[in-house]
Amino acid sequence: MPDYKAPVRDISFVINEVLESEKLYQTLPGYEDATEDLLNAIVEEGAKFAENELAPLNQVGDEQGCTWSEEGVKTPEGFAEAYRQYVDNGWPALAASPQDGGQGMPNMLAMCITEMVGSANWSWGMYPGLSHGAVNTLEAHGSPEQKEKYLTRLVSGEWTGTMCLTESHCGTDLALLRTKAEPQADGSYAVTGQKIFISAGEHDMTDNIVHIVLARLPDAPEGTAGISLFIVPKVNVNDDGSLGERNAVHCASIEEKMGIHGNATCVLNFDGAQGFLIGPPNKGLNCMFTFMNTARIGTAMQGLAHMEQSFQGALAYAKERLAMRSLTGPKNPDGPADPIIVHPDVRRMLLTQKALAEGSRAFLYFLAQQGDVVSHGSEEDAKAADDMMALLTPIGKAFVTELGFEAANHGVQVFGGHGFIREWGMEQIVRDSRISMLYEGTTGIQAMDLIGRKVLGSGGKMLMAFAEIIDEFCAANSDEEDARFVGAVKAAKDEWLGLSMEIGKAAMENPDEAGAAAVDYLMYSGYVTLAYFWARMAVVARKKIAAADGDTSFYQSKLMTAEFYFERLLPRTETLKKTMLSGADNLMQMPEELFAI
Amino acid sequence: MPDYKAPVRDISFVINEVLESEKLYQTLPGYEDATEDLLNAIVEEGAKFAENELAPLNQVGDEQGCTWSEEGVKTPEGFAEAYRQYVDNGWPALAASPQDGGQGMPNMLAMCITEMVGSANWSWGMYPGLSHGAVNTLEAHGSPEQKEKYLTRLVSGEWTGTMCLTESHCGTDLALLRTKAEPQADGSYAVTGQKIFISAGEHDMTDNIVHIVLARLPDAPEGTAGISLFIVPKVNVNDDGSLGERNAVHCASIEEKMGIHGNATCVLNFDGAQGFLIGPPNKGLNCMFTFMNTARIGTAMQGLAHMEQSFQGALAYAKERLAMRSLTGPKNPDGPADPIIVHPDVRRMLLTQKALAEGSRAFLYFLAQQGDVVSHGSEEDAKAADDMMALLTPIGKAFVTELGFEAANHGVQVFGGHGFIREWGMEQIVRDSRISMLYEGTTGIQAMDLIGRKVLGSGGKMLMAFAEIIDEFCAANSDEEDARFVGAVKAAKDEWLGLSMEIGKAAMENPDEAGAAAVDYLMYSGYVTLAYFWARMAVVARKKIAAADGDTSFYQSKLMTAEFYFERLLPRTETLKKTMLSGADNLMQMPEELFAI
Repeated sequence: MPDYKAPVRDISFVINEVLESEKLYQTLPGYEDATEDLLNAIVEEGAKFAENELAPLNQVGDEQGCTWSEEGVKTPEGFAEAYRQYVDNGWPALAASPQDGGQGMPNMLAMCITEMVGSANWSWGMYPGLSHGAVNTLEAHGSPEQKEKYLTRLVSGEWTGTMCLTESHCGTDLALLRTKAEPQADGSYAVTGQKIFISAGEHDMTDNIVHIVLARLPDAPEGTAGISLFIVPKVNVNDDGSLGERNAVHCASIEEKMGIHGNATCVLNFDGAQGFLIGPPNKGLNCMFTFMNTARIGTAMQGLAHMEQSFQGALAYAKERLAMRSLTGPKNPDGPADPIIVHPDVRRMLLTQKALAEGSRAFLYFLAQQGDVVSHGSEEDAKAADDMMALLTPIGKAFVTELGFEAANHGVQVFGGHGFIREWGMEQIVRDSRISMLYEGTTGIQAMDLIGRKVLGSGGKMLMAFAEIIDEFCAANSDEEDARFVGAVKAAKDEWLGLSMEIGKAAMENPDEAGAAAVDYLMYSGYVTLAYFWARMAVVARKKIAAADGDTSFYQSKLMTAEFYFERLLPRTETLKKTMLSGADNLMQMPEELFAI
Repeated sequence: MPDYKAPVRDISFVINEVLESEKLYQTLPGYEDATEDLLNAIVEEGAKFAENELAPLNQVGDEQGCTWSEEGVKTPEGFAEAYRQYVDNGWPALAASPQDGGQGMPNMLAMCITEMVGSANWSWGMYPGLSHGAVNTLEAHGSPEQKEKYLTRLVSGEWTGTMCLTESHCGTDLALLRTKAEPQADGSYAVTGQKIFISAGEHDMTDNIVHIVLARLPDAPEGTAGISLFIVPKVNVNDDGSLGERNAVHCASIEEKMGIHGNATCVLNFDGAQGFLIGPPNKGLNCMFTFMNTARIGTAMQGLAHMEQSFQGALAYAKERLAMRSLTGPKNPDGPADPIIVHPDVRRMLLTQKALAEGSRAFLYFLAQQGDVVSHGSEEDAKAADDMMALLTPIGKAFVTELGFEAANHGVQVFGGHGFIREWGMEQIVRDSRISMLYEGTTGIQAMDLIGRKVLGSGGKMLMAFAEIIDEFCAANSDEEDARFVGAVKAAKDEWLGLSMEIGKAAMENPDEAGAAAVDYLMYSGYVTLAYFWARMAVVARKKIAAADGDTSFYQSKLMTAEFYFERLLPRTETLKKTMLSGADNLMQMPEELFAI
């Protein structure tokens, strides 16, 4: 199993040197305490917890998986104990609002913890991670009583939460949802139906689980306009806050799946379970959309986590494993062969992982920072940040998870045949990462969201706003030494705008043109976005080297990785450009019955 | 679990209409019986066996896996019985030489069977599949007594065989091999050492297993020039052919791995096991190289098998699963939603699988046909075919398996969240396919073989010979109606030659330039090669439609898929072109210690 060492130096570089967090948080009322020193100190603490408590449980979780019985779900050895420590250390409350018992730290900092927890053990991280949806729902739409009763215990981590959306016949298309909620005399609702794919839907870590359930009222309109949100606690809660009777919600089974075996993916049966309406009736989906971006950035983090985890494993192996001689003559002449890190193709895979991990880190922490501006900034800043998140979140979610899977596969490939063997832990990363392109909206769904709702839906405005920020960056960094990066970003941005226009035009005549271009367009957008963040990092690194600011090796590594990104990864846009412009005909012309004959 | 229906119509199209097998085999002495009717009839029989006997065991094999005990390895339920039927039907002998008890059919036909068997159940197919290495070794280098004693029983399928190369510290780099063979007074050798990753190394399907083992004689030179080949039977064979004592080779354990659970991947301990030298001492690697191409085409078939298998599963689901409405208005207005095959991005994934499967089928059957020319053609033809195989085999092995993995992942993606769940069988295809890029030489190794040994090593001659064949095809098909395909192939071929020259020049100055370009160059070569085969298929299809030859739907589907290939997949060369020319510096400049700081 690969060791995990949290990349605290790189996290600090991103949040402090590139994103200048302290400067930002000084301007956001409520976040003034988030100084560079405090951010670094908390990251260091999180690193220790992830490395020492969670990483050692990662392979155990995969091997043992969860076990179901009538009494409930047993999580793998050590998972529940680690959760208790996590709660004792106060981690669940880190970024929650002080009025609900939280510590009021920026969401960006919580994302740093999510990265490290997730890189160490993604399956474990999903138990506290899934609470965020419930927390966000209750924060935004819960009544004061509901907050008091449920939210504070979710914030403290005493209980965990879930989001119960999917039914067996509908995941993406929630219009087809069937679960019912019948009003009861006491003002509560009897919730009946079956939900599937409920991550962390049942476990032995806490005394209670707060399910947020999407269901239909008896008189609800059809489709998505008839969905309401309900709190359905696993165990009913008395008015004094003590636990009452077991509610009529039970885990019928857990799924056998490709990976994330340490996390229980549950079928939940609601048999007239007592539920409580949150927010206005029939407005459930609207309520959820308000924090969809946050949830999706959380999933994007999974891509980053697997990039980092897989890179670390592959790098260690590449330095140790001896095979063949370097093409330019022995580099380890006293040994029987050279370490495989001397071979260009092994380096290509390692540098791909490294460039993707470091680029995605800057991208996603920037996004999380935007979320902090949305919640704590001035109205104007919040609006701009909200638009930025709306545009970049589908890119973050789909692009970073797709490349997380790619990086995980490079990790296996570096190990050769050993990569396919369980004990090395590299194939687990591939299996764990595969879900990230599926849940929280598949890559295809994110792509339609990006091109349809965000880019074309805003009449290009959201994209133009980001383009302006890129332009400002380019204008502010016109030094000759940075030109190779800055110039490439500027050109890529111009091309991105042009392609968006072109597809927009085609889509006006035929909506299938948007669908036919969508995924290629999203991936293209991702490479341009990452180029922007790589250029920002490269400029910082170059200036630090010039200023002889110490830590030169770190900054040199950064510059070389930037070069790799621009020369080896950004050119992927060349193909995407061609395919996204190839039109819908090559996809749509084939009648269904001609697919197989 | 997806049903498997063998694509007999498409196989027939490729081997008869595109590759015109009957015409070829009439010119190859010994293969005259291989008429179109006979080929089709045998494919039909193979299809039934694969569909009815093997496909139902595919998921069972994954779930149960193999179990190890002191007594040996137990294969999954039904595997041994299916093997007995396979032997009773005479399949193992299909393409073996009549003088060794074979039926003397072309190797290309055996590959058709390999495809269908492998698409139905790759893990099962590896048990008879692994015998080929042993059969080929003995055919080429065995003494008459060895052939009589071992080869005939491998050909009949009474026993299976293995190839024992890898040791825990060396897979790719066989120079490091340590297993020893000490000469004994009776002319045999005592073989001592440990081999790992021995597929089908132990099982309960046959009474005996014939291991071909790479080992060193006591006085052998160091490195690859000191490796010899030995027969080490699991059970010793008496001179009358009856089984004697158990030999000192035992399966110490089987690997826990990502996929192909139905196949036992064994650690084999040789504790002074009795072995018999094959071929001249210290020439073991040379002996093996003579049939390395055949073995690698067998592995390339795995890519094709998973493309087809995953396509079939995804297509069936895409027609049934209802979600969302078509962007251009409801296509299933009476249902609650449209089948997802109406969505452009779902079609993109399905057509990618289809175009890859059908293109790879033509490519690999062509390659297998070349093998038949090598073994049965005139000296001149055999030499040309051998060169062709030398050039195209690394492309077939690496390119087709890489894209087999891609196709398997599209299959999961089409299923959305359900794709991650075991019972649907789609994630198994991803896990099973992952090994194909690793064993029989990783993608990186194939790429160095292609660019180093084949393209540059032949001074460009092998590539020029293939380019001439492409030119001939283009010249012979200058009809305006075919120009969109034929013209694109011609342009791609020209560019391919130019890129080869450019990289060759750079590599003369710095060998790392070849390594740095290798994988991108191989993938590029693959897309051009597949474009050639797609153009050949498109021309045939277009002419058949023009001739109103019946089966119009089939040919239309072919033409539309060709269009998809040229517009959506061939443009991947755009990126590869740029990255392969980006130079070695961006890979080699980073000192080892700067990879992680």
